[in-house]
Amino acid sequence: MGQGDYRILHEADLRAYLAGLPDLKGLLGGEPAAWAITEVGDGNLNLVFIVKGARGGIAVKQALPYVRLVGESWPLPLSRAHYEYLALSRQAQLAPGLVPAVLHHDEALALTVMELLEPHIIMRKGLVAATRYPRFVDDITTFMARTLFFTSDLALSAAEKKEAIAAFAGNHALCKITEDLIFTDPYRIAEQNRWTAPYLDGLAASLRDDLELHVAVSRLKLKFMASPEALIHGDLHTGSIMVTDSQTRVIDPEFAFYGPMGFDVGAVLANLLMAYFASAGHERTPGERHAFEGWVLETVEQVWNQFARKFLDLWRAGAAGDAYPRSLFPGEKGAARLEAERQATMQRLFSDAVGFAAAKIIRRIFGLAHNIDFELIEDAKKRAVSEARAVRLARAMMAEPGTFSVIADVTAAARNLRDWMPELSG
Amino acid sequence: MGQGDYRILHEADLRAYLAGLPDLKGLLGGEPAAWAITEVGDGNLNLVFIVKGARGGIAVKQALPYVRLVGESWPLPLSRAHYEYLALSRQAQLAPGLVPAVLHHDEALALTVMELLEPHIIMRKGLVAATRYPRFVDDITTFMARTLFFTSDLALSAAEKKEAIAAFAGNHALCKITEDLIFTDPYRIAEQNRWTAPYLDGLAASLRDDLELHVAVSRLKLKFMASPEALIHGDLHTGSIMVTDSQTRVIDPEFAFYGPMGFDVGAVLANLLMAYFASAGHERTPGERHAFEGWVLETVEQVWNQFARKFLDLWRAGAAGDAYPRSLFPGEKGAARLEAERQATMQRLFSDAVGFAAAKIIRRIFGLAHNIDFELIEDAKKRAVSEARAVRLARAMMAEPGTFSVIADVTAAARNLRDWMPELSG
Repeated sequence: MGQGDYRILHEADLRAYLAGLPDLKGLLGGEPAAWAITEVGDGNLNLVFIVKGARGGIAVKQALPYVRLVGESWPLPLSRAHYEYLALSRQAQLAPGLVPAVLHHDEALALTVMELLEPHIIMRKGLVAATRYPRFVDDITTFMARTLFFTSDLALSAAEKKEAIAAFAGNHALCKITEDLIFTDPYRIAEQNRWTAPYLDGLAASLRDDLELHVAVSRLKLKFMASPEALIHGDLHTGSIMVTDSQTRVIDPEFAFYGPMGFDVGAVLANLLMAYFASAGHERTPGERHAFEGWVLETVEQVWNQFARKFLDLWRAGAAGDAYPRSLFPGEKGAARLEAERQATMQRLFSDAVGFAAAKIIRRIFGLAHNIDFELIEDAKKRAVSEARAVRLARAMMAEPGTFSVIADVTAAARNLRDWMPELSG
Repeated sequence: MGQGDYRILHEADLRAYLAGLPDLKGLLGGEPAAWAITEVGDGNLNLVFIVKGARGGIAVKQALPYVRLVGESWPLPLSRAHYEYLALSRQAQLAPGLVPAVLHHDEALALTVMELLEPHIIMRKGLVAATRYPRFVDDITTFMARTLFFTSDLALSAAEKKEAIAAFAGNHALCKITEDLIFTDPYRIAEQNRWTAPYLDGLAASLRDDLELHVAVSRLKLKFMASPEALIHGDLHTGSIMVTDSQTRVIDPEFAFYGPMGFDVGAVLANLLMAYFASAGHERTPGERHAFEGWVLETVEQVWNQFARKFLDLWRAGAAGDAYPRSLFPGEKGAARLEAERQATMQRLFSDAVGFAAAKIIRRIFGLAHNIDFELIEDAKKRAVSEARAVRLARAMMAEPGTFSVIADVTAAARNLRDWMPELSG
């Protein structure tokens, strides 16, 4: 991986580096000395620069050899930039127009240059501001259906699938972050956990004592580790999605690997549900975000329903993979039986997505990495109320999966919890 | 893989080759010209030589670039010798004394030299002759429990596990044989299928029309392709086991890869069940093999029960892997809840093993590769009767898994079919 040539690029280095690349220099335009370079990375792991010249702009992402959120005490391999580039390239083929175009990749520097997404904003920020995104459902469901279907056993030969799994196997340090921070730490005493204290102290303790939940999350963890169903994005929250009214772009697939499809679908559902529960904490006058909240729950339903429909349509249209060979389902009766099995497969995938969504919610409230949906609720007590509602739903989704057989069961439960008042500690 | 240096070794080449390896030359003893070299390969894929010198003997296995059973029209990569060597080495660490010692490996020649197993015979031959093997249950269950547990997520970190999966990903040509010949072809018209015609013509047709079975076998196929639970042997039938009264050796792991644990366990159960049903076809006087048949069914029960006990004991003794972290199950209550989950895990594994066992039975009766348990029954009608009984059990095991919740359900069903008279075609 040429790690010997790696150095962290500061503004001046970056300017010189880009000036040496004719295509990018031309795209930016004007004199390099006049380029405006700003470091804007607000994620947990990397440096991100926006560079603007006389003609155009670009985004430059460089991996740091440690977790930015924590510091040098937590090293993280630069190779993640390689896997991100690999995933971006594959996603660009499978879901054209739904990921940023890659303009340049430098393996040694763990650096990728992408088109500048402008005026896109991070979707999570828009959701905090109660903005609705009319393209979102169609775009995100196309992204998920196509990237998951075409990298699964339904579309690949078993040989292609095994080679693809192996190509991402080295990204295990990023998987380990998920394994620890999502599937383990929130359920035990861990130094990095934090929550809205003291109000959620009791709830945090109850999760640590909830053995049914521990079994459920351990099953999900094992599924995450050992079910390479498809190339998943691996971190598909609303902070990894950039939007405008008319465009959607999925960014930051550095956690990509072959894992369970329900993890990506669950991530989207979870982050919408958190936006829903956080919304009450952001209202200045009662009911002012009512229409937005209705849109969010409708979006939750549409995300699942349209994803399922698109995934099924791809499968029906002609699956060239080694799973479920058509030759075993001849004639009308065979077609009908295969269709029933497709529906059963989607039901299992739904159940996985519900469980993973729950895990994603709980980690954002009790684990290391929180999100601005809740964090920007300044009144800690109000924040705790929103969080407790989300956790109540998540607990049920994870430990009583049988009570959620269709997506409307999830949104109905969320709606019922909108004004529920939890007992808080402290 | 240095395939450029590969050449098929004939007797004279092999003699010269071995003479050039001081350790092996010393082990064999005497003049190379005096060594007795015999080609004894009776498997489907490779050349196997036994070489005996004045002092000792060795077994030499060389992969051919095609499927021996079919010929040069069916090429097969030599790299399988590499994966076999890799698997043998790992199994030797994990289950010492239960695989042949590797004395030499030559990657370019796709050749492995092993200790000569003498006076061991292929277990399947012994079973045809109604021989009982008192060490078998203890040895095979130790082999399976240890090789499966210690390569699973219960014993490995997620990083180690992913690297191990990747190390075997290239063995997909061998997996493909299983995918096609076990999980697909027997259920559709395929040129290479054969069965005891005309007696089983009707049964063959009914399997091709049995859509419930096609769904069940397709689920098993997908599990085989995309559930890398542990390093499995991949071909653990009674022709891959060499035995004496006091020793058991598992050979030929060239199909090894990271797959579902139930596939290995199911293979052992399936081959014992076939020995049981074939037994009636080998008796010269009614009831003469009664005691042997009782031993076989008792062995079926013990294989599962002792495997499950040993696997559980390893798990209880201290699982260092990333799955089911102990820290989530503290105290007595935690320990009890984890123990219940262990039992539930074994129940899921049992269910997998029952399904895979069924697939292994059906492929030996309707697919390309048959076995001598049935093939040595000269009277075709008698053979068809034995086979039809086995298929009736296998059909139930695959399509009605809920009716088999403990291993005694399987042996009871087998016992009930011992004298059942099927309707034959022709």
